[in-house]
Amino acid sequence: MNSNLKGRNTAIILMHCPDQKGIVARVTKFLSENNGNIVYLEQHVDQQEKEFFMRIEWDMELFSIPQEKVADHFDTLIAKHYGMTWNIYFSNQVPRMALFVSKMSHCLFDILARYQAGEWNVHIPFIISNHPEMQPVAKQFGMEFHLFPVDAKNKREVEEKEIQLLKSTNINFVVLARYMQVLSEDFITQFPNKIINIHHSFLPAFPGAKPYHSAYERGVKIIGATSHYVTSDLDAGPIIEQDVAHINHTDTVKNLIRIGQDLEKIVLSRAVYAHLQRKILVYKNRTIIFN
Amino acid sequence: MNSNLKGRNTAIILMHCPDQKGIVARVTKFLSENNGNIVYLEQHVDQQEKEFFMRIEWDMELFSIPQEKVADHFDTLIAKHYGMTWNIYFSNQVPRMALFVSKMSHCLFDILARYQAGEWNVHIPFIISNHPEMQPVAKQFGMEFHLFPVDAKNKREVEEKEIQLLKSTNINFVVLARYMQVLSEDFITQFPNKIINIHHSFLPAFPGAKPYHSAYERGVKIIGATSHYVTSDLDAGPIIEQDVAHINHTDTVKNLIRIGQDLEKIVLSRAVYAHLQRKILVYKNRTIIFN
Amino acid sequence: MNSNLKGRNTAIILMHCPDQKGIVARVTKFLSENNGNIVYLEQHVDQQEKEFFMRIEWDMELFSIPQEKVADHFDTLIAKHYGMTWNIYFSNQVPRMALFVSKMSHCLFDILARYQAGEWNVHIPFIISNHPEMQPVAKQFGMEFHLFPVDAKNKREVEEKEIQLLKSTNINFVVLARYMQVLSEDFITQFPNKIINIHHSFLPAFPGAKPYHSAYERGVKIIGATSHYVTSDLDAGPIIEQDVAHINHTDTVKNLIRIGQDLEKIVLSRAVYAHLQRKILVYKNRTIIFN
Amino acid sequence: MNSNLKGRNTAIILMHCPDQKGIVARVTKFLSENNGNIVYLEQHVDQQEKEFFMRIEWDMELFSIPQEKVADHFDTLIAKHYGMTWNIYFSNQVPRMALFVSKMSHCLFDILARYQAGEWNVHIPFIISNHPEMQPVAKQFGMEFHLFPVDAKNKREVEEKEIQLLKSTNINFVVLARYMQVLSEDFITQFPNKIINIHHSFLPAFPGAKPYHSAYERGVKIIGATSHYVTSDLDAGPIIEQDVAHINHTDTVKNLIRIGQDLEKIVLSRAVYAHLQRKILVYKNRTIIFN
Repeated sequence: MNSNLKGRNTAIILMHCPDQKGIVARVTKFLSENNGNIVYLEQHVDQQEKEFFMRIEWDMELFSIPQEKVADHFDTLIAKHYGMTWNIYFSNQVPRMALFVSKMSHCLFDILARYQAGEWNVHIPFIISNHPEMQPVAKQFGMEFHLFPVDAKNKREVEEKEIQLLKSTNINFVVLARYMQVLSEDFITQFPNKIINIHHSFLPAFPGAKPYHSAYERGVKIIGATSHYVTSDLDAGPIIEQDVAHINHTDTVKNLIRIGQDLEKIVLSRAVYAHLQRKILVYKNRTIIFN
Repeated sequence: MNSNLKGRNTAIILMHCPDQKGIVARVTKFLSENNGNIVYLEQHVDQQEKEFFMRIEWDMELFSIPQEKVADHFDTLIAKHYGMTWNIYFSNQVPRMALFVSKMSHCLFDILARYQAGEWNVHIPFIISNHPEMQPVAKQFGMEFHLFPVDAKNKREVEEKEIQLLKSTNINFVVLARYMQVLSEDFITQFPNKIINIHHSFLPAFPGAKPYHSAYERGVKIIGATSHYVTSDLDAGPIIEQDVAHINHTDTVKNLIRIGQDLEKIVLSRAVYAHLQRKILVYKNRTIIFN
Repeated sequence: MNSNLKGRNTAIILMHCPDQKGIVARVTKFLSENNGNIVYLEQHVDQQEKEFFMRIEWDMELFSIPQEKVADHFDTLIAKHYGMTWNIYFSNQVPRMALFVSKMSHCLFDILARYQAGEWNVHIPFIISNHPEMQPVAKQFGMEFHLFPVDAKNKREVEEKEIQLLKSTNINFVVLARYMQVLSEDFITQFPNKIINIHHSFLPAFPGAKPYHSAYERGVKIIGATSHYVTSDLDAGPIIEQDVAHINHTDTVKNLIRIGQDLEKIVLSRAVYAHLQRKILVYKNRTIIFN
Repeated sequence: MNSNLKGRNTAIILMHCPDQKGIVARVTKFLSENNGNIVYLEQHVDQQEKEFFMRIEWDMELFSIPQEKVADHFDTLIAKHYGMTWNIYFSNQVPRMALFVSKMSHCLFDILARYQAGEWNVHIPFIISNHPEMQPVAKQFGMEFHLFPVDAKNKREVEEKEIQLLKSTNINFVVLARYMQVLSEDFITQFPNKIINIHHSFLPAFPGAKPYHSAYERGVKIIGATSHYVTSDLDAGPIIEQDVAHINHTDTVKNLIRIGQDLEKIVLSRAVYAHLQRKILVYKNRTIIFN
């Protein structure tokens, strides 16, 4: 994957619309006329869906339209005309991410290590958990930790508090780092394509609980991990990233869990990175991940 | 994987039984006393099942028991005592394999190329197909080709003829190289753990028909192939080998099929090779594949 | 990787030039004005080299400039202005490929199987070899076979004959399918970035002869294969595709060769496919491989 | 890989010697006679070297020879007779590991996260560094941190202090988690096959400094990481584990470093785990890694 221009502000638009003639010419003319130098453009047409997809990134340094007005101009001059679904991002606006965990530490450690090392361009104001076990890890890394124990009775109420916290702190997206509690549809619809989960199998195989036990029972020779956006359909949202590891007959369930945890943390982190790079566009429950 | 002693006859025993003390000592004493030098031994105990598994291979050159009597001696002196399930093979006995195909050529070409190049220690006396399309390929390679068109009405009768052909020609095992016709339970039970199939997905995801179409619909980021022994439960037999390839959003179903065919032929050939090397032991619908 | 519009003629331009403002806008305006619907566009700027790269593909069906004049128009109106290095291809022009082999059959079988199955959009008028061993394989597949034995004395003369044959039959590119004879610089300069080789190691490790023996000696845990364009610098040309397989301590050199041959044939075929899809652009001894 | 019997003490012997008849029989008889139930045995003969290799693990619970006398009995009764090179380990003896770091945090975080989560059966009494940057990370995890700044002048003296510290604290092995300082031959010979390094390339490609820059320059399509035992020959010691990741033309050196760091930490951790499991035997600069 590409990285942004180091130290310079760029604008990124992800867009799709029914395929029509002249879209690329129109968009690039708009940028060129306003002194916007394109640093990256990837575009393709899905021939089956007759849908046009594009990611374009340009240098804002000499761009003649001020940052706060770019969206309005693009909408008026281009997006409305072609009936586009689109989003704009600026590399100088650092995304704000909320991290949800439960009792397991491997994904949490991996993300906090990257965060502390400055690997990602992100703010993580706090960690939310339904269990207290990870509070010491949060403390080690100097992170705010919010404990929200959930049970069948209080789930609705707790989720409302969580949503309020996320909204009031301007959280842009949520990462479920082995958060072992199913979110309600109400919660999910507040953050469409903005909740990234890691599931410990190569979906659609072994959805739901205890996939490593199921993998052992079935006698598979590979195990996997899948990161996806959460939808109200359990483990069935748009897949962002998947990877696998080869195993053999000597591997017990305990071994599968150990090997799988390395997959989980890497696959989740790759998905978060792609999201942070504004490389992902969701269309009809599938992701387009630009290069 | 290991290869046999080049140019020398070896005996191989695959065995399993409830774990007991002294099995390895007893077996190796038997070989040692009869001047059988072990060239390979792999043994482990499945702690959950309390089951003992072993593959042992020894040089027959100076072994004092003649080849035709080894099985009887081993059974009498050892196997019965421990209640073993076991099989014996000799590297100077070349296995006889029947190759089943339908309309697709990629696995067929791959296997015939290896056969002609002498890569495998196997005899393939003929090809069986339910369609005529591959007859010219068989001819190119100088292979006997038996056409057995199957429909709902004649299936029982055709399978009986096929079984008769396989039995009368002393076929040891069957390879379904994208044979697109479900075998009946009657057929399968004649060849337990002796029919190797290739399924074009990473099972248990996408069993049954059109897995590449399903993979496209689901938006997965990896596709796979699985070779397994055929049981009466469709696509649910013991898995021998699996592998995957990474794909992306630009890949159409046609591309998935193209990329997947390379997986299929390699995964199937690896499975056949392991089978020919006598490396595979089946236990409770799972395979132990020795190193 | 993407595939072309099924059954429709498309034009493809691969181009690069020093980065300047407005290139994409200018190119896409040219297409849009002439009724050329873009089906694929991928563009990026190498920030270190300040070089602009693009691959653009459009539907020729309604394009107002006739096929034979497109190159001239593009050159006059656009390429000269920006100082572009570029190539144009049309999907209705089937590339002509020459296949060079020596004594080993695995890559040859793999390519001929794909060719016979119609997997690739290519013509292969003949096979050239410096040894007679593969003549029967050529015959099996109904392929013309030219034997050109080479020794230290006749190398110059033989290569001249080969070049003459390639030129007189309008060969567009050459595939060395484990051709075990180093081509002279004179030969190579006749076909810049048009000779695809497969080397049986993950370059730059183990260049030159007997890489599997060297891999065994060094005790590596992975072996690999590399396809690259041939330059006068042995095994040092632009890399197109690489892949690896995991091995272990039980694998003898013979096993490495067996496992490696599967890598070689798949890696070579992927490279040839990318070349046929006009996805590859070479810049300063590195390849850009568009998606 | 297998795991030990949970909660029970096992003994493990790794051995090799010139191949002779009856070794397995003799060893297993010794265990059987003394009531030692074998839980794992893997043995093979390297036919080229005519060398016998074995890893055997047995349950100590009912074994009639006390733990402190096992080595002596084995040596007297068996090892001397066959001229074995061998080592014995007991699962109730937790290995003591010293962790060397410099300025980079990714491998350090990964190892400390596993350590804190209890993933490994190991004691890590302290961290040693030639730079102060990682001191805060050590502190976060409550780890002792020893700063030993090294320059050309003081290297000999500093290494002597380090060796003294390692010896006085009964360290069994050393892990160099991106320790960017070449150890002297004097240091290395004190810990033969007991210093594990991670090199950020797929060796033997790109040894020495700045392998990602070299990988970028060469235009490879895969990058890798290699963990190996340190010998006096730089980056040429016995390889334990290697893995690779696919990259493409859009990846800058900065990206290669980012992608590579995930490889480095996983490959190093797999090597440490295999070492802790007593699965590794070194023979003539190559590793045998038992299953």
